[in-house]
Amino acid sequence: MTQQQIQQCIDACLESMNACNVSYISSLKEYDLAMLRDCIRLSRECAEICGFAAQAMTRGSDFIAEICDLCVKACEACAAECEKHRHDHCQACAEACRKCAEACRMMAVVVA
Amino acid sequence: MTQQQIQQCIDACLESMNACNVSYISSLKEYDLAMLRDCIRLSRECAEICGFAAQAMTRGSDFIAEICDLCVKACEACAAECEKHRHDHCQACAEACRKCAEACRMMAVVVA
Amino acid sequence: MTQQQIQQCIDACLESMNACNVSYISSLKEYDLAMLRDCIRLSRECAEICGFAAQAMTRGSDFIAEICDLCVKACEACAAECEKHRHDHCQACAEACRKCAEACRMMAVVVA
Amino acid sequence: MTQQQIQQCIDACLESMNACNVSYISSLKEYDLAMLRDCIRLSRECAEICGFAAQAMTRGSDFIAEICDLCVKACEACAAECEKHRHDHCQACAEACRKCAEACRMMAVVVA
Repeated sequence: MTQQQIQQCIDACLESMNACNVSYISSLKEYDLAMLRDCIRLSRECAEICGFAAQAMTRGSDFIAEICDLCVKACEACAAECEKHRHDHCQACAEACRKCAEACRMMAVVVA
Repeated sequence: MTQQQIQQCIDACLESMNACNVSYISSLKEYDLAMLRDCIRLSRECAEICGFAAQAMTRGSDFIAEICDLCVKACEACAAECEKHRHDHCQACAEACRKCAEACRMMAVVVA
Repeated sequence: MTQQQIQQCIDACLESMNACNVSYISSLKEYDLAMLRDCIRLSRECAEICGFAAQAMTRGSDFIAEICDLCVKACEACAAECEKHRHDHCQACAEACRKCAEACRMMAVVVA
Repeated sequence: MTQQQIQQCIDACLESMNACNVSYISSLKEYDLAMLRDCIRLSRECAEICGFAAQAMTRGSDFIAEICDLCVKACEACAAECEKHRHDHCQACAEACRKCAEACRMMAVVVA
């Protein structure tokens, strides 16, 4: 695992955290709010987990494999929900989550 | 500042964090969801800040005065919004936030 | 899973977070600092993970099983290291971590 | 406040969080550990606050002014301590903290 690979995974987590929070805030302003209950909850939850994962990697946590595994699950669940909605912020969130899940899956394998 | 006073402030922050998150989750299930947009956003935000304050106090942060000041502002804003809504979880959230604001206000004065 | 069982697990996480942070701060003041490098790092890391787990449970995260599994691993690693040191704060930290690991292990099984 | 200005402040916080955590981990491995007690504690604390600030900005917190004010104080205290030490990671940390303090100071003024 090179420092560059770790940095790419951190960046993917931060991108996903940002996209999730943007989608969370944007969804709360939408007209079809009632359709977005799960999307709101999952994107906010996923943002927390992605942010936690990024921080854990920068502080050289001993539990990066487990935290990245958790991040894969959160990102996949969030992406699956966000993909159901046509809003641009939902689609952007799903895309960032998919990329983050991929980066974290690789990280979890390499450091395990 | 005795250890007991610090512990009381930590407990007030954790109570408020819990009540805010309960209200957040409960609000997302309500029928009158559109009325609760600000309430959802503020209770989730306040939960984060209360949790951060509690953690900062347990780790003996040098910035407890500033963090408690921040917590006072978040709790007062959240309480003011939650008090507008008749739901039990909103009222319980407002009450926990008011208590937390009072505890953090005292803490910020004492440690400053 | 009753609300009372969840609350017991949250409380165990918060107790552990507190004991870990107390041990972290206390270890940084000890004379035999060089012996405590791993202890400092692990207790601080474990505090973060316990705090994250407690917050995740209060916000009804969909990923409680995974987060509690992570918390079990962090608590066991921290307890194993802290038990090596004679300081009271290290012993208290190890004990709180063991209790938290037990509570989180049960939680992870029940919610999975 | 343009989205670009907010992103620059988020990036400065994330850079500082990273440099602080790198310095924290590196300091714990140094020979002159006893000289670095305050440096270890402050860099870890500052990393938490910078990470919290970055996350708060991405989720459009109502309390960005207060959180950025807090971040200025943490970064200045951390930089002042790190500058006392000759290690490259301490110097890099101090530099990232100074940049972050500057970005957060501007942000706090603009959004207040």
